Amino acid sequence: MSQATNQSWGGRFSEPTDAFVERFTASVNFDQRLARQDIQGSIAHATMLARVGVLTDDERDAIINGLSEIKGEIERDEFEWSVPLEDVHMNIEARLTDKIGITGKKLHTGRSRNDQVATDIRLFMRDAIDVIEAELVRLREGMIELADREADTIMPGFTHLQTAQPVTFGHHLLAWQEMVARDHERLLDCRKRINVMPLGAAALAGTTYPIDRHVTAELLGFERPAENSLDAVSDRDFAIEFTSFASILLMHLSRMSEELVLWTSAQFDFIDLPDRFCTGSSIMPQKKNSDVPELVRGKTGRIYGHLMSLLTLMKSQPLAYNKDNQEDKEPLFDAVDTVRDCLKAFADMVPAIEPKKASMFEAARKGFSTATDLADYLVRKGVAFRDAHEIVGQSVAYGLRTEKDLSEMTLDELKQFSATIEQDVFEVLTLEGSVAARNHIGGTAPDQVRAAAQRAREALATLKGGSL
Amino acid sequence: MSQATNQSWGGRFSEPTDAFVERFTASVNFDQRLARQDIQGSIAHATMLARVGVLTDDERDAIINGLSEIKGEIERDEFEWSVPLEDVHMNIEARLTDKIGITGKKLHTGRSRNDQVATDIRLFMRDAIDVIEAELVRLREGMIELADREADTIMPGFTHLQTAQPVTFGHHLLAWQEMVARDHERLLDCRKRINVMPLGAAALAGTTYPIDRHVTAELLGFERPAENSLDAVSDRDFAIEFTSFASILLMHLSRMSEELVLWTSAQFDFIDLPDRFCTGSSIMPQKKNSDVPELVRGKTGRIYGHLMSLLTLMKSQPLAYNKDNQEDKEPLFDAVDTVRDCLKAFADMVPAIEPKKASMFEAARKGFSTATDLADYLVRKGVAFRDAHEIVGQSVAYGLRTEKDLSEMTLDELKQFSATIEQDVFEVLTLEGSVAARNHIGGTAPDQVRAAAQRAREALATLKGGSL
Amino acid sequence: MSQATNQSWGGRFSEPTDAFVERFTASVNFDQRLARQDIQGSIAHATMLARVGVLTDDERDAIINGLSEIKGEIERDEFEWSVPLEDVHMNIEARLTDKIGITGKKLHTGRSRNDQVATDIRLFMRDAIDVIEAELVRLREGMIELADREADTIMPGFTHLQTAQPVTFGHHLLAWQEMVARDHERLLDCRKRINVMPLGAAALAGTTYPIDRHVTAELLGFERPAENSLDAVSDRDFAIEFTSFASILLMHLSRMSEELVLWTSAQFDFIDLPDRFCTGSSIMPQKKNSDVPELVRGKTGRIYGHLMSLLTLMKSQPLAYNKDNQEDKEPLFDAVDTVRDCLKAFADMVPAIEPKKASMFEAARKGFSTATDLADYLVRKGVAFRDAHEIVGQSVAYGLRTEKDLSEMTLDELKQFSATIEQDVFEVLTLEGSVAARNHIGGTAPDQVRAAAQRAREALATLKGGSL
Amino acid sequence: MSQATNQSWGGRFSEPTDAFVERFTASVNFDQRLARQDIQGSIAHATMLARVGVLTDDERDAIINGLSEIKGEIERDEFEWSVPLEDVHMNIEARLTDKIGITGKKLHTGRSRNDQVATDIRLFMRDAIDVIEAELVRLREGMIELADREADTIMPGFTHLQTAQPVTFGHHLLAWQEMVARDHERLLDCRKRINVMPLGAAALAGTTYPIDRHVTAELLGFERPAENSLDAVSDRDFAIEFTSFASILLMHLSRMSEELVLWTSAQFDFIDLPDRFCTGSSIMPQKKNSDVPELVRGKTGRIYGHLMSLLTLMKSQPLAYNKDNQEDKEPLFDAVDTVRDCLKAFADMVPAIEPKKASMFEAARKGFSTATDLADYLVRKGVAFRDAHEIVGQSVAYGLRTEKDLSEMTLDELKQFSATIEQDVFEVLTLEGSVAARNHIGGTAPDQVRAAAQRAREALATLKGGSL
Repeated sequence: MSQATNQSWGGRFSEPTDAFVERFTASVNFDQRLARQDIQGSIAHATMLARVGVLTDDERDAIINGLSEIKGEIERDEFEWSVPLEDVHMNIEARLTDKIGITGKKLHTGRSRNDQVATDIRLFMRDAIDVIEAELVRLREGMIELADREADTIMPGFTHLQTAQPVTFGHHLLAWQEMVARDHERLLDCRKRINVMPLGAAALAGTTYPIDRHVTAELLGFERPAENSLDAVSDRDFAIEFTSFASILLMHLSRMSEELVLWTSAQFDFIDLPDRFCTGSSIMPQKKNSDVPELVRGKTGRIYGHLMSLLTLMKSQPLAYNKDNQEDKEPLFDAVDTVRDCLKAFADMVPAIEPKKASMFEAARKGFSTATDLADYLVRKGVAFRDAHEIVGQSVAYGLRTEKDLSEMTLDELKQFSATIEQDVFEVLTLEGSVAARNHIGGTAPDQVRAAAQRAREALATLKGGSL
Repeated sequence: MSQATNQSWGGRFSEPTDAFVERFTASVNFDQRLARQDIQGSIAHATMLARVGVLTDDERDAIINGLSEIKGEIERDEFEWSVPLEDVHMNIEARLTDKIGITGKKLHTGRSRNDQVATDIRLFMRDAIDVIEAELVRLREGMIELADREADTIMPGFTHLQTAQPVTFGHHLLAWQEMVARDHERLLDCRKRINVMPLGAAALAGTTYPIDRHVTAELLGFERPAENSLDAVSDRDFAIEFTSFASILLMHLSRMSEELVLWTSAQFDFIDLPDRFCTGSSIMPQKKNSDVPELVRGKTGRIYGHLMSLLTLMKSQPLAYNKDNQEDKEPLFDAVDTVRDCLKAFADMVPAIEPKKASMFEAARKGFSTATDLADYLVRKGVAFRDAHEIVGQSVAYGLRTEKDLSEMTLDELKQFSATIEQDVFEVLTLEGSVAARNHIGGTAPDQVRAAAQRAREALATLKGGSL
Repeated sequence: MSQATNQSWGGRFSEPTDAFVERFTASVNFDQRLARQDIQGSIAHATMLARVGVLTDDERDAIINGLSEIKGEIERDEFEWSVPLEDVHMNIEARLTDKIGITGKKLHTGRSRNDQVATDIRLFMRDAIDVIEAELVRLREGMIELADREADTIMPGFTHLQTAQPVTFGHHLLAWQEMVARDHERLLDCRKRINVMPLGAAALAGTTYPIDRHVTAELLGFERPAENSLDAVSDRDFAIEFTSFASILLMHLSRMSEELVLWTSAQFDFIDLPDRFCTGSSIMPQKKNSDVPELVRGKTGRIYGHLMSLLTLMKSQPLAYNKDNQEDKEPLFDAVDTVRDCLKAFADMVPAIEPKKASMFEAARKGFSTATDLADYLVRKGVAFRDAHEIVGQSVAYGLRTEKDLSEMTLDELKQFSATIEQDVFEVLTLEGSVAARNHIGGTAPDQVRAAAQRAREALATLKGGSL
Repeated sequence: MSQATNQSWGGRFSEPTDAFVERFTASVNFDQRLARQDIQGSIAHATMLARVGVLTDDERDAIINGLSEIKGEIERDEFEWSVPLEDVHMNIEARLTDKIGITGKKLHTGRSRNDQVATDIRLFMRDAIDVIEAELVRLREGMIELADREADTIMPGFTHLQTAQPVTFGHHLLAWQEMVARDHERLLDCRKRINVMPLGAAALAGTTYPIDRHVTAELLGFERPAENSLDAVSDRDFAIEFTSFASILLMHLSRMSEELVLWTSAQFDFIDLPDRFCTGSSIMPQKKNSDVPELVRGKTGRIYGHLMSLLTLMKSQPLAYNKDNQEDKEPLFDAVDTVRDCLKAFADMVPAIEPKKASMFEAARKGFSTATDLADYLVRKGVAFRDAHEIVGQSVAYGLRTEKDLSEMTLDELKQFSATIEQDVFEVLTLEGSVAARNHIGGTAPDQVRAAAQRAREALATLKGGSL
């Protein structure tokens, strides 16, 4: 019976909650995941209450010992979760009272479930972010090292999925690295706004007990107590900000995944992914599918959905706490798990990418990828850029008709389109020459790629330090 | 070991799947929910294969008996699900082969997991829609009956949350009913597009076995086989269409929830919700919170999120099946559960709403809610509408200054603003008169409300018939 | 001065609207697009008012003549729109009063801007849907005819973007056609729910004038008057339902676009798009970019965004009309324009696709695309399907090592993997044989494709009829 | 004729762009908004090109003079925008060549439209953010000052829209201020990631000209050149990050708007909004609608939609630039305008809010809002919290039956529920006592509110400094 068991608010009520309603409104099935943080917060709260004299030292010790035992029960999966007790908080408190009697009821002095859950979830997110950051760092390291190794590997660069200009594979990998480097920054910006303590806001207005919120904040490693009690219990910005970070990250991973799927197709054939990241087909024995990138690409939708879910949830809610907010946890938990798993998958997979260099090179050789170099050559010879563009356009049209790449035409053929072209043109029409000539910060020249990899290493080392 | 256990595609592979990848890409933890439909589809497939001579009758019977036993094991929760076996299909097939030997392997003849899962999920959705429709019907019935009962109960009608004109509570409830009536139609439109059979599309191109798809479709109660194999395995429109239906439905429920929350506030005090739909506070003993409407309002975000998730998932996917599609199930399952639970909660709760008639009436009496009636009165006396509007505006401004409602002013006071006003004005300034005067189809007059309730009953009866 | 000019609600107010607020809250800059429908609705309203005796015939004629003149002024772009007059309705009414004096003010008798705008926008959407349907029909026709023409053209079918089995290009085009056929159905389902008339709901509760809503509905071609006045002014389901339709449609077009972009890449090289659908590069003269498909793919986000916008807009709004609703128009107008333009672009472009048959055939020939056929061959010889799968897997692994397709191996080589293989195996290893063998409804066999094209033609003809 | 006029890529093409396609793919109708930034970027580019010797000083001067004239033409609205010239870049370049001849064509040396547009839009966003920050600062200032002024004004604090505990209006306003303070931080975090220069990335790979990107970056006030050319032309993170900021901001404004709408309702009647922020009704003369908050609440959907649009746009795009990206501008421009206008509306409106203090106080007095204080009183007397909660629950149930607030009961009545209650209980049952007792950082005690306002002033001053 819920009325009998749930001692937290039954007094005013004349009939028990409907059984379906009890299940429908209970959160314990998902918020039990906050148990560790709930106990951590309760221990700090009890410690503070004793320090300001609301609890005796003996009461504090009984509470802390009781909670520690409960933590063990939960870790050993011996704890019996009860739906009639609604949520993780009441489950743990009821068990505490079972264990230590009346003193257990004193733990809730000077707090409410509203500030308690807000504190729990911030502690949870802080822990989650630290795990996620570690995978992000591992991914960035893997990208940088592979980029350095492949600084000379030539492949076609695409715009509009059309061969545009040759680039190096290392350069392409560093473009990926720049994306996740920004994600890394956003993650740490989000962490700093999470690390603020709601506890002490009580239901919405603060408490009449002589609490010391600075003490609790320090015990829990929070940077400071939240400035306003109404805001503290109703703020879920951090959940949305984390999910925004996650959405941009997954967007990036979806772009990389798309490229991995393209590159492992028979048509591109640019790379090999080890079998351990792939699966096969139940009907087509020849298939080797790039399941991991495809699945990560698919999970992008999941994360975008969670972002939209949380934004919708908070829209137009009057202050302070409303039951709606209970819906924040499942999308947030799933976002955390998805981000962590996708990053782990990529951090494992990226270093294992095996470029098929001959195939990449051959693809870059075709498709008039050095056309821009010819145009630049003409400009250096004094032709205006837009005119050079026109000359090269005609050369390419001729090449399409005669099925010859620019480097395969004779000097006479090329001279049809501009008398300015001379024997030295063939130097700029090689892929190696084209790539090496883009020799400025941000350019694809192999030396620039190696220098960029070194700068990326240093930036990563600095940022990691910043999160401590 | 996954290589050893997973017999569906191992042959071409030189190393086993990474353990993390195996877990990351497996779907069995959530797609086991399709077990019943998977077995249903397999039995129909085996029956058809026997009918066209691909299986012997004995083989068919062995398969069907084996599957029936497995169904029992699953229902009794005795089935051991294996992650290395990836998904519900391989788990069931492996168990079938355990049971009946080599014949079990023949079940997969002429199909692929691609058409199999597409079939399973359509069967699942068809079942789910039928359950959901039943709750929707119950909710509509509850609304219609309460509306009929409250056809004479006067309350303020709001625009911009400002008192606008008096309406009846029954009229307001029928506005709700119209919303869910449209949802009902959309649900049935969606059902008709779900009820098409992918089976026989095999991996993507159809099969070389002499299958008869009309037979399988008939056995499974599908309206027809899907017209194109590539489309059949890659189409997830029905998932999106269902989630669109669900989004609009939850939007409607969020609007009703908002009103229920307002109406149970001390400030509005229009209705009472029985205690069994409410919960209390762990810190404020006086609180009685309308948890069910608040939670339903919060769940709106969840559903919008799933819609966005599925739309993002399918964006830009080339044909035919891609691993991304595995991500369709969790949002869809959760959308089904959420819709069913929210409808059940509302279908239980709406008939239990207790209007506080005196409080509603008093709120309507204040706020110059018959101002439009005064304007209409003036127009009937020959004043142009826009001028009447101006006259009433000045009367209201006077009423605000003197704290008098229009019906509380003397004739002389009213005549200040227009000499046209005479003694008979006081008839139109009553709430009952105002409401009764809106006496046309769609209007709030009690007789119209009763007639509308009757039409709604008939429309509901017709539509229910339509879904059979 | 807004107070002076805006005669619709000034009376009660003691200070004019702030100039910025006036601009911020005005809608005339975008809702003037409803002018034609606003006048159409007003003419019907005036006609009905005269029929029930609220207006004299002379008043009605003056109003109709005045409105017709205003329509001409708007069409000739001579109408001066005024922001202080807020919206399209007040602009037209003020101009009418300029023209015909006091009688112009009588037009607003028995209606409100709330039901007026709801009516206008439904009329607008009905018109828009009819234009959109015409483009959809044209696109479907183009797909069906091209599919019929290319029923024998062989290309690789993909799953996971890996070569899976050979299909025909006609079959692939019919998969596209199935997608838009469902969109067509959804569009017509949406149209039927749009075609219901709010007029007569007035502000929210109906009106005290003796209006006849059936007359107005008939004059405007609506199927019926809306059943409930509160619902009629607050319902925006049709806007969301249309945008849901549009989202699924654009999702489909994004999938086709993705394939067009892939197919025109140098790596796939499956088709040519005429130059008129492409653009070039300002820096790379050799580029020919598939701009139209890329842009359509990009516009998918635009439509998804509008859907989310409208869903968010309506979330938790209490009845009846709120100012929030003004935000419905811009996303809806843009959705209409985007859908119409994207469909037109595709309807023009699809018939102009030029398949490069040799390139498609060669791609299908590679990649062991007949591996499933070998497995099916083995099964027909008595091998269990899962065992056959394993045998073919080993053959493919051998082929990868020795760089030989299955059809390039000798009988002895094939016999290494199964003694069951005999000389007749080579018949099933050809692409033509593989394709022709999938000879059932929904399969890729050329005869099936031609039959499916014929059925699609008939279904299209039937559905078009249905929308009349 | 587009072929004739568009000199940027015509050479390779054999037929002109289709007229509809030309309009469909052109961006000049919206990207002309970037004209100022385009010219600013071009001037810096020309300056750098001269510094490294690619242009002569005379060429540079001709280009800069020409561009300055064009800027004037655009500002004076004399510039003729041409759709066949596609975009803002080609329009300006073509006009430059008209003016200064062949030298104009040299401006495009060493850059591409891909890096040009990426640079323009970052410059635009940087400018936009600075305007937006100014409004945000003004809003924060207005909130802080009003909060300070209303630090003693008592109102009911709500959870679940049920009266929970008394708070001060100043405290509530500071909760709002905390929300926008976080938005302010996020805006500046976003700005720092925007302020990085793509120019020099050229089409995707960098350029063969000896450019000096540090010079250009310094001239344009960018913090540094982008590290990777592929990333520089394809990155749109900043657009998404800005729109995420905007979504959270509008979510906050929607919450405040919801409260303003509630508070101005007849039922709450907590505040007055000056007439200049409100509008009236065309049919109900008594109405005064809180249009500004309602409209802002509605615009939340618009911004959420733009966020979803941009996230969808970028999903799965392979590197580097694709035509899809053209779709980034309209949502971003509209997000900028909407954020600026909504902030301006709020910054104007918040200081003009007039609290109705008597009405607020009376609402707080009702509803057992000091029940928690009674419970705390009991705990101080030695009762365990959970037991005290039960006692108060029974007192409230009695109060509901007898229609008495706690402070209206006699000591004997109260003693029914606990013998511990004594005469001094009545001190804690006053609103002033209740509020003053929550006297810790973050609590609602008037002194705490004043101290919090002072800290908020200081934090704002510091943050503003940080953005310089």
